[in-house]
Amino acid sequence: METAAPSPDWAHRTAELLEAVRARSPLVQCITNTVVQNVTANVLLALGASPAMVDAPTEAGPFARVADALLVNTGTPHAEPRVAALEAAHAARDAGTPWVLDPVAVGSLPVRTALARDLLGLHPTVLRGNASEVLALLGDSAGGRGVDSTVGTEDARLASVQASTGRLVAAVAVSGPVDLLVAPGTGVVRVANGTDLLTRITGGGCALGAVVAAFTSVAPDDAGAAAVAATAVHTIAAELAAREAGGPGTFQPLFLDRLASLTPEDVVREARITVEAEPASLVVPA
Amino acid sequence: METAAPSPDWAHRTAELLEAVRARSPLVQCITNTVVQNVTANVLLALGASPAMVDAPTEAGPFARVADALLVNTGTPHAEPRVAALEAAHAARDAGTPWVLDPVAVGSLPVRTALARDLLGLHPTVLRGNASEVLALLGDSAGGRGVDSTVGTEDARLASVQASTGRLVAAVAVSGPVDLLVAPGTGVVRVANGTDLLTRITGGGCALGAVVAAFTSVAPDDAGAAAVAATAVHTIAAELAAREAGGPGTFQPLFLDRLASLTPEDVVREARITVEAEPASLVVPA
Amino acid sequence: METAAPSPDWAHRTAELLEAVRARSPLVQCITNTVVQNVTANVLLALGASPAMVDAPTEAGPFARVADALLVNTGTPHAEPRVAALEAAHAARDAGTPWVLDPVAVGSLPVRTALARDLLGLHPTVLRGNASEVLALLGDSAGGRGVDSTVGTEDARLASVQASTGRLVAAVAVSGPVDLLVAPGTGVVRVANGTDLLTRITGGGCALGAVVAAFTSVAPDDAGAAAVAATAVHTIAAELAAREAGGPGTFQPLFLDRLASLTPEDVVREARITVEAEPASLVVPA
Repeated sequence: METAAPSPDWAHRTAELLEAVRARSPLVQCITNTVVQNVTANVLLALGASPAMVDAPTEAGPFARVADALLVNTGTPHAEPRVAALEAAHAARDAGTPWVLDPVAVGSLPVRTALARDLLGLHPTVLRGNASEVLALLGDSAGGRGVDSTVGTEDARLASVQASTGRLVAAVAVSGPVDLLVAPGTGVVRVANGTDLLTRITGGGCALGAVVAAFTSVAPDDAGAAAVAATAVHTIAAELAAREAGGPGTFQPLFLDRLASLTPEDVVREARITVEAEPASLVVPA
Repeated sequence: METAAPSPDWAHRTAELLEAVRARSPLVQCITNTVVQNVTANVLLALGASPAMVDAPTEAGPFARVADALLVNTGTPHAEPRVAALEAAHAARDAGTPWVLDPVAVGSLPVRTALARDLLGLHPTVLRGNASEVLALLGDSAGGRGVDSTVGTEDARLASVQASTGRLVAAVAVSGPVDLLVAPGTGVVRVANGTDLLTRITGGGCALGAVVAAFTSVAPDDAGAAAVAATAVHTIAAELAAREAGGPGTFQPLFLDRLASLTPEDVVREARITVEAEPASLVVPA
Repeated sequence: METAAPSPDWAHRTAELLEAVRARSPLVQCITNTVVQNVTANVLLALGASPAMVDAPTEAGPFARVADALLVNTGTPHAEPRVAALEAAHAARDAGTPWVLDPVAVGSLPVRTALARDLLGLHPTVLRGNASEVLALLGDSAGGRGVDSTVGTEDARLASVQASTGRLVAAVAVSGPVDLLVAPGTGVVRVANGTDLLTRITGGGCALGAVVAAFTSVAPDDAGAAAVAATAVHTIAAELAAREAGGPGTFQPLFLDRLASLTPEDVVREARITVEAEPASLVVPA
């Protein structure tokens, strides 16, 4: 890893984008798995965005044209949401709607892996996942490591740099104990906020995909900034909630409360964001 | 708006119907969207009713014959729940099971709009939605305004009056900051209880549809009374919960607690229900 | 009922198995109804297990070969999960993956009843349900009483003994105010822990099915012990949470907290487990 320094600039940029999300209340279409639909909608509402779980074929495409952002998550890839996902991603691409792909558990599971590869070919604005998922999906170019739960976020750094510099996606967000955000415009950014409790509830990561989508709507030409700010807001709210929680159960309502009440000052005070020295770090080693 | 006065009679009627729901513990079949199935079931359980999310084709119809009430919500209109919804609505009509139609987001979205129109033709006992949804669905007769989130509840008054006096439905419940309930037997009733937090969680409105269904089972010949009482109970419990909540996250469990513990005295003390002077107000202007 | 005595041995065995689950963090595949997917995943995470809601056809089978345990719940039997359930159950049987069948509301509802009978023919490791469901599913051999909500757990004793001694299943777990666990190796065991609040939330029973599955992974040759320990852990955590809860809403997060923090000492102190004197009690009356 190259030298990195705390970035007060990123903390302030995050606070600004949070206020922009709340001011705009973006309409965020979510085609996501049935396990986390409810928590995803509640996270968006707490954030100040407007969720719309429009995932039926023939509705999903037209809606993606008018939505402010779109999330596609492959967690429960039944036939109708699969059709809806492809329809919406095509429409988003055509209409310029920013969209996020969250390739849950891709790798050895065949249906979602095929779907995620098709979706990746439609150039999502942001690819978000854990390191195993990102590597599995970008595997053909990154060397193919498949899903491996022992993979750390740093292992996904090179593949993420390649995918974003090669314009496969505009930014990559890799979740982990320290989140890794990669985009040509922002370089390699790390967010060290968070809490283990996010891994002890379902939807901790999936809902982040929706938050990233919400932020892309207020930074349409800077997907990297959207990914950084969304990640910081999500993990700071979680960190604050964890200080009050008695366990994973009480953590959930407190997380939504903190997301709703998070101030720009909270963001600036709590953010632990570091940036690799030079965007030149994005140059892929030959 | 015509003159309206606070109605202690309605507060007492609401308290009586709440006790009737708890005494009977009605079996309420819900064919609802996957985003809010869980919260809907929990709201019914907290209320003292018995939820049954029977939404598979060939099961939904027979079940609607034996259930005490039925909710059909169009939020995630996939193929199987669509078939189940029509099957259940037909069976409910034939068997005399009271049922509620909640046409989530009808208007420009084609699948749910076609479904909701088909369901409306089967004469739901109560039509429940926000003003935009009610107007979009009743549009042919009301002039057709489509979905518009800036529409207020009062804008849906005329269409609601027409739909209920024309026996398209027995009652209409329009949700908003002040809820509007319309039925030939009750006239135009407004319930001013509630909290903005109901709009900051997913399912705040959808679960109300299930609560209305539960109340129709104890007032089968007075859909208007059921709609008023359900709305008052739901929004009073929410209002009491909001006083203790730290945000939208902690609001949810507190709402369920208050729904479970709500006393007739709470209802009488807190209800802000007003009635337009004369049922004659239901006469549709020529 | 034969004589029964409190069993400190069972309390210690339960505590040991709880620690084994936490140490192994078993991967538990859940094909369950959409109403309770979220709470089921959260219960497994709180327990220390790793949930995977893999319920799409062609993914479910291969996954069941590598999962540590499988739950199949028939609560919302749509076409794709039905195919996935049969695929996964076949794979589990072939691969030796322990699995639990939870036949939600079987009896008069035709789709799930046919599915549950097919699944029962694949010899689940544990059959878990309330007394009505267990009797409805085992009806052909037990006399056929159908779904009847007035049936108590003791009414399912004989059918459970017959099913387990006849090797239709390795163990039967019947939920009720006092849970009844039956297996050839353990005899007839009763767990008297719990709280009425488990019946005032959705998923109280369904999530227990997933907990039983998690425990089967650490006691693969002793399904009865897994069923007893899972039931005791689930109901003790619920009982402790109920002491702090203000109603069914706050009960839910507190239940997850208590499940996550439950110590072996808590288990030994709180367990109310009794055993019928002799495994010979399993001999079916001629």
